[in-house]
Amino acid sequence: MLITNYLNVQIAGDSHGPAVYGIVEGFPFGFDVDVEKINGDLKLRQIGYGRGSRMKQECDEVKFESGLWKGFTTNMPIVMRIKNRGTYPEGDDERTLPRPGHADYSAYMKYKNKDMRIYAEGASARRTAAIVAVGSLCKQWLEKRGVFVLSFVESCGEIGTRMNFENLKIEELRARRNESPVFCPDLETSKKIVKKIDEVRNEGDTLGGTVKTFVRNFPAGMGSFSSAQSRMDSVLGANIFSIPSVKGFFIGNPASHLRRGLEVHDRFGKENDEIVRLSNNAGGIEGGISNGMPIVTTSYLKPIPSISAGIESVDLVTGEEKKVEYVRSDVTAISPAAIVIEAITAITAADFCLNDGGM
Amino acid sequence: MLITNYLNVQIAGDSHGPAVYGIVEGFPFGFDVDVEKINGDLKLRQIGYGRGSRMKQECDEVKFESGLWKGFTTNMPIVMRIKNRGTYPEGDDERTLPRPGHADYSAYMKYKNKDMRIYAEGASARRTAAIVAVGSLCKQWLEKRGVFVLSFVESCGEIGTRMNFENLKIEELRARRNESPVFCPDLETSKKIVKKIDEVRNEGDTLGGTVKTFVRNFPAGMGSFSSAQSRMDSVLGANIFSIPSVKGFFIGNPASHLRRGLEVHDRFGKENDEIVRLSNNAGGIEGGISNGMPIVTTSYLKPIPSISAGIESVDLVTGEEKKVEYVRSDVTAISPAAIVIEAITAITAADFCLNDGGM
Amino acid sequence: MLITNYLNVQIAGDSHGPAVYGIVEGFPFGFDVDVEKINGDLKLRQIGYGRGSRMKQECDEVKFESGLWKGFTTNMPIVMRIKNRGTYPEGDDERTLPRPGHADYSAYMKYKNKDMRIYAEGASARRTAAIVAVGSLCKQWLEKRGVFVLSFVESCGEIGTRMNFENLKIEELRARRNESPVFCPDLETSKKIVKKIDEVRNEGDTLGGTVKTFVRNFPAGMGSFSSAQSRMDSVLGANIFSIPSVKGFFIGNPASHLRRGLEVHDRFGKENDEIVRLSNNAGGIEGGISNGMPIVTTSYLKPIPSISAGIESVDLVTGEEKKVEYVRSDVTAISPAAIVIEAITAITAADFCLNDGGM
Amino acid sequence: MLITNYLNVQIAGDSHGPAVYGIVEGFPFGFDVDVEKINGDLKLRQIGYGRGSRMKQECDEVKFESGLWKGFTTNMPIVMRIKNRGTYPEGDDERTLPRPGHADYSAYMKYKNKDMRIYAEGASARRTAAIVAVGSLCKQWLEKRGVFVLSFVESCGEIGTRMNFENLKIEELRARRNESPVFCPDLETSKKIVKKIDEVRNEGDTLGGTVKTFVRNFPAGMGSFSSAQSRMDSVLGANIFSIPSVKGFFIGNPASHLRRGLEVHDRFGKENDEIVRLSNNAGGIEGGISNGMPIVTTSYLKPIPSISAGIESVDLVTGEEKKVEYVRSDVTAISPAAIVIEAITAITAADFCLNDGGM
Repeated sequence: MLITNYLNVQIAGDSHGPAVYGIVEGFPFGFDVDVEKINGDLKLRQIGYGRGSRMKQECDEVKFESGLWKGFTTNMPIVMRIKNRGTYPEGDDERTLPRPGHADYSAYMKYKNKDMRIYAEGASARRTAAIVAVGSLCKQWLEKRGVFVLSFVESCGEIGTRMNFENLKIEELRARRNESPVFCPDLETSKKIVKKIDEVRNEGDTLGGTVKTFVRNFPAGMGSFSSAQSRMDSVLGANIFSIPSVKGFFIGNPASHLRRGLEVHDRFGKENDEIVRLSNNAGGIEGGISNGMPIVTTSYLKPIPSISAGIESVDLVTGEEKKVEYVRSDVTAISPAAIVIEAITAITAADFCLNDGGM
Repeated sequence: MLITNYLNVQIAGDSHGPAVYGIVEGFPFGFDVDVEKINGDLKLRQIGYGRGSRMKQECDEVKFESGLWKGFTTNMPIVMRIKNRGTYPEGDDERTLPRPGHADYSAYMKYKNKDMRIYAEGASARRTAAIVAVGSLCKQWLEKRGVFVLSFVESCGEIGTRMNFENLKIEELRARRNESPVFCPDLETSKKIVKKIDEVRNEGDTLGGTVKTFVRNFPAGMGSFSSAQSRMDSVLGANIFSIPSVKGFFIGNPASHLRRGLEVHDRFGKENDEIVRLSNNAGGIEGGISNGMPIVTTSYLKPIPSISAGIESVDLVTGEEKKVEYVRSDVTAISPAAIVIEAITAITAADFCLNDGGM
Repeated sequence: MLITNYLNVQIAGDSHGPAVYGIVEGFPFGFDVDVEKINGDLKLRQIGYGRGSRMKQECDEVKFESGLWKGFTTNMPIVMRIKNRGTYPEGDDERTLPRPGHADYSAYMKYKNKDMRIYAEGASARRTAAIVAVGSLCKQWLEKRGVFVLSFVESCGEIGTRMNFENLKIEELRARRNESPVFCPDLETSKKIVKKIDEVRNEGDTLGGTVKTFVRNFPAGMGSFSSAQSRMDSVLGANIFSIPSVKGFFIGNPASHLRRGLEVHDRFGKENDEIVRLSNNAGGIEGGISNGMPIVTTSYLKPIPSISAGIESVDLVTGEEKKVEYVRSDVTAISPAAIVIEAITAITAADFCLNDGGM
Repeated sequence: MLITNYLNVQIAGDSHGPAVYGIVEGFPFGFDVDVEKINGDLKLRQIGYGRGSRMKQECDEVKFESGLWKGFTTNMPIVMRIKNRGTYPEGDDERTLPRPGHADYSAYMKYKNKDMRIYAEGASARRTAAIVAVGSLCKQWLEKRGVFVLSFVESCGEIGTRMNFENLKIEELRARRNESPVFCPDLETSKKIVKKIDEVRNEGDTLGGTVKTFVRNFPAGMGSFSSAQSRMDSVLGANIFSIPSVKGFFIGNPASHLRRGLEVHDRFGKENDEIVRLSNNAGGIEGGISNGMPIVTTSYLKPIPSISAGIESVDLVTGEEKKVEYVRSDVTAISPAAIVIEAITAITAADFCLNDGGM
C-alpha cells in the first residue's frame, strides 16, 4: 500500500508472475478514463537511453478488470492489471549469492530462505509499472482540475543541468523532456548524459542521478501540520522513498539548509493588487500545507546495483567469496524513474485534493 | 499521528494551551519506565546555543496520566502530559501579517481565518516536546534490547564537520555531543558554529543545518519492500518530514546519486568466517529492509523563519506591504532539532521492532 | 481508537488515574462549541436508577486542553480532559481472584500478571465518559446540519416496551427519556423496570437489557458497499461492540431473519409525487449505505458482572475456589449505556458525513 | 478492505467483470498452501439447496497470481484471482427501477446515476467468492496451529435447530454440516428447512436465517480492550456486517441480555487442578480479549431481496409505480452465507493471532 488518506492504493505482483496490479479503492464515481493515455505513460516508462534490451521488448498494456463501467469509474475498487512477459524461473537452480545494493541480504535476514530469487520477485522495479498506471489515472483526474504533474531528469551521475525550468510552460517542458532520450529537458545536458552513459556502459559500471518534479496549479490549503499522516511533505516523502533506488528527497530549494533565513524564506509582495510570493524556495509547502506556489521536489537515486563488471559478494551456502556477475544490465534507471516519480507524485497529489475537498 | 504500524502515536497540544501530549497505544505490557531519563531528554531539547531566552526559563517535565502502574507500562493507552508555561493570548489583537516560512499563509488558505495567531498554536515547535517524551520512552525500550539511537548536529549553515563518527563508541559520541553547546561532537567545528551563530545573531538573521542520526545494533530484517507503509525508509522519511523545518532527508551516503555503482554498493566480505559488509553507503537499509549495518540518516533543516531583522510580507486585512518583525528570536533550531530527530527515529525504530517481532 | 475514516478518535485514561481523555484529530475548523451542553451529557451518563452511590458523587466536567480557540475548533488535535475523582490504589494488596464476565482472566492470559487490579484500569466503564464527551461534540455538529441522534432503554432484563417511538418527534422522545429514571420513554414500562431493579438489587443480582438508537434526518448516500472500513453497518457495529457489556447488535428490524422477503423489504411508493419508503425494516442502511430513512439500531447488553451476591471463581495464586464479592454494586448499566451508545453513534455518524462530504 | 491490524485484505472485482480478487498483504513467509483445499471451499459456497441454477453452472477456481513461490507464501502481496463466468451487460438497456433491500437506491442517492445495473456490480454476493478464498487460506494457517473455524446454518426463517453442537467434535460437526443440503448439521431440522424452502419457492418469496460459528482452540489473550480497532468483538462484528444481508450479530449466548448476572457470567471452577469455565455464555471473548473458551457467534441474515413474486417500486426516470420482477431467483442465501461467514471469521482470527504473536 501507498501511504494515503482518501484513496487506498495497493501495488502487487511478482516480477515473474503472470501480471502486476494496481488496486485503488475510493476513486471518485463518474470519471471518464482515457486508457490509451495510461498506456502512453506505461510506454514512456519503458523507454530511456541506458535501459537494457529487456525493457524494449515488453510493451505494457493496462486492463481495467474492475471499477470501470462503459468507460467511467464507479467508485468500486479499481483493479488495473498489466501482464508480465516473463514467467517464474523453473528448476531448482537456486541463487545463493546476495547482490550488494539489492534487497537480497536484508530480505534473507528477514525470511531466512537462502534462494535469493524469491526476493527478486517483490523487490524489483517491475511493480513500478503498476504505480505508473495508477499515477496516470490520477494525472488525468488532476488535469481535469487544471493541475499538472511533471518529472524529469535533472542529473545523471555528476552531469547535471543548471537550467531553471520553473518559468517554462508545462507543455513545452513535457515536449522537451520526451524529446530527450534520457528525459532531461536541457538538450545540451541530455547529450552529455547520453555520452556519459555510453562511457560507463563500456566500463561495466552504473549511474544514479536526480529527478526534479513540478506540480503546477496545485491548490493552496491541502494537507495539515497536525500529523505525519496528513502533512503533504511527510506523505510525499514516504511514497517517493518507496520507489526502488531512492535514497534522498528534498522539497523546494535543496540548498536551503546552507543559506540564511533572509535568503531562503519566500517574501510576500503585491502584483496587480494580489498577494504574490517573490520566490519559491519552500517548494510550495509550508508547515506541511500547500501554499499555492508550484510544488517542487528533488529525488535522489543511487546507481542501479546490477553491475555487469561484477561486484564482490559471499555465497550464503558455500561461504565462498565471489563476484556477482550480470550478462546484461542497464547503466542507469534514472529516466524510467522520472516517469515513476511523476506517477507517485500524482497519486499523492490527487489523494490530498480528494481528502481536503470536504473541508 | 505519526506513521506507524504497531504503535499508535498521537501528538497533540496547542503551543499556548495548558499542556502538550504524547499518546501511545500499543506499547508493550510490563516495561519499567525511567521517568527521570525522559525528563533528561526534555531538558536536552531545551538547551542549545542559539536558542532564545524563552526556552531557558521553561523546565519541561512529563507526567504519565495513563498506562503506567507502579512504574511499569500496562499496554493501555499511555498519556504523557507536559505542562506548558504560557497561556493562550488574550484580547482581540489579531495578527494578520503572515510570516514567510511559517504555516501562516498556507493555513490561512485552508481555513480562511485571518488571525494568524491561531495557526501558530499547532504549527509550532512546542509539540516537539511531546515527540521527545515518546521517543525517550522508545529509546529506553530499544536500549534494553541493545539498540542505540543518537542524533547530532553535523552542520549549521555552511559550517560543517568532516569528521567521521561511525567508529566512535556510542557513549563517547553522546558525551561529546552533550559537551558541545550546539550538539556537534566535533569540538573544533562546534566552536566555529558558535562563532557563526553569534555573527548571524548580530545581523538579525537565522541559520539552518543538518542532523546526522545513527541507529546502532538495529536488527537486520526489519521492514519490507512490499509497501510504503511497511518500508523502513518510507516511514522514517515520513516521520522526519513531520518535524518543523525539515526540507530534506537522506539515508546512507548523501552523495550516492553522484557516484558509480562500484563505489556505492556495499560489498560483502568475510571476517573471522562471518559475512561482513565492507562499507555502509546504504545506511543500513536495502530494499526498505534493515540489513544489520547501522542505520545512518541525514536530515536537512531550513533556517528558522522568525527573523529579527524583519522580512517582507503583506497584511491580509489592510493589504499593506510591511515587514514582519520579531523582538526576540533564536538564530537556529538545529540543536534542539537533533534531540527531536533522535526521538522520532527511536519511535520509528521501536515500531518496526515491535511489528516484525511476530514474524 | 475508534474505527473511523475521517476523524481520528482516541479514547484513553485509566479508571483510577488523574483523568480520562478523548482526543480527536480531524475535526473541522471553525465550529462553535457549547461546552456546557457536553457537560450536560456527561451528567446524564452519571444519572440512572440502579447505579450505585459512587457515580452520584462524581460530577464530570470536560476541559478542552487543545484544539479550541476563543470557543471554536481549530482543526488541530482536540484534547478533551475529564478529571477522575479516584486515585490509583496504593499498597501491595493484589487482587488475584478473576471476576467472571470481566476482562480479568482474558487479560491475565494476555499479560500473565496476576494482579487483576491492573486490568480494571483500562477495561472499565470509566473511559466511556470520554466517549460521551466526544460524542456530544459530534452531536452538536450534526444538529447544526439537522441530524439528530437519540438512544433510549428499550428493555431491562425481560421487561421491555412494545411501544413504537418511530413517529414521535425527537424533542418529545428526548424529554420522555430524560423524565424516566431509567431512560425508558414508555413511562409505564419505566416504572416496571424500576420495580424489577429494586427486586433484583435485593437479591444481589444484576440485569442487562437493550438500547434502541435513532438517527433522524441522516443524509442518504453515506457509506459504501466496497469494504468493511467504509460500510456504515460495519463501522457502526464495530464501534458499538467496543462499549463494555455489548454482546449483540442489530440494524433495523431485529426480526428480519425470521420473516419472508415480502414482509421485510421496504417497498417504494409515491407521496405528493415524491418517492417514499413504505416501511423501514432495513433501519436506514441498504448495502452498507444510508438510504435516507432514519437509522435504527438495537444494542444488546449483558448484565453487569459485578454481582453483590458473589459468584464462583478460583484464586490464580492460591488455587483456592471462592466467591468474588462486592460490597456495593449497581444492578444494571443499561441507562448510562444508552447515553454512551448515543455518543458513539453520533461519532460514527459525523465521521461518515465528514468523509463523504467531499464526493 | 476488511478491518484488520496485521493482514491487509482487499476484496475487489465487479460481479460481471472478468474476475474477482482477494489481495492480502502481510501474510507470513513460508506457508505451504493447499490450493485444492481452497477450491473445495469455493465449491462449498456454490452448493446449497435453495440456490438458483446460475450458481450451479459456475465452478470457481482460484489462481495465485502473486505471493506464491513453488507452493509457499513469500510475504509479498498475495493476489488471488477467481474468474467470473459472466460479462458486463452490453447495450444501453438501463435499469431504472430500484430493488427494495438492495443497495440500488442508497447507491443512487450517493452517485446520482440512474442506471441501477452499475451498483449491482459491486453490491453483489459475487465478491464473497474472494472472501472465501482468502478465508480458506487463513483456515489452513490456523489449522496448522490447531485452531478450527466452522460455521453452519442454525435456522432458516422460523425453522431452527435447538440442538447444542458445542460438545461435538469439529470433524463430525463438519461432516454433518456438509451432509445437509442446507448446511444445517441437525439433519431433522435440515429436512424441515428443505421443505420450507420448497414451499416458499412456490410462493415466489424468500427467506433469511441465522448462522452459528465456532472457533475452537483459539488461544486466550488475543485482542485488547483498549480500542475498537483492537477489540476482537468489534473487529469480528465489523467484518461480519460487511457480508451482504447480515443485519445482526451476537457473541456468545444471544439471550444474555434477558438473563440475570448469576445465570450469564461464566463461573470459574477446577478440574484436575486446572482452572476451567463452567459455561461459555460469553462466547469466548471477555473485555474484547479471547479467554480460551471456544469463540461462538451468531449472525442474522435478512431474506434475500430478489423476490420472484415481485415487490413494489417506483421507476426513477418515469416515476411509474411498478413491481420489480425476477425471472429466476434463489429462495435463500443462508447456506452459502455460512461458508462466507466461516471464511471471514477465519480471516479475523488469523489476523489477531498474527498481530498478538509478537507481544
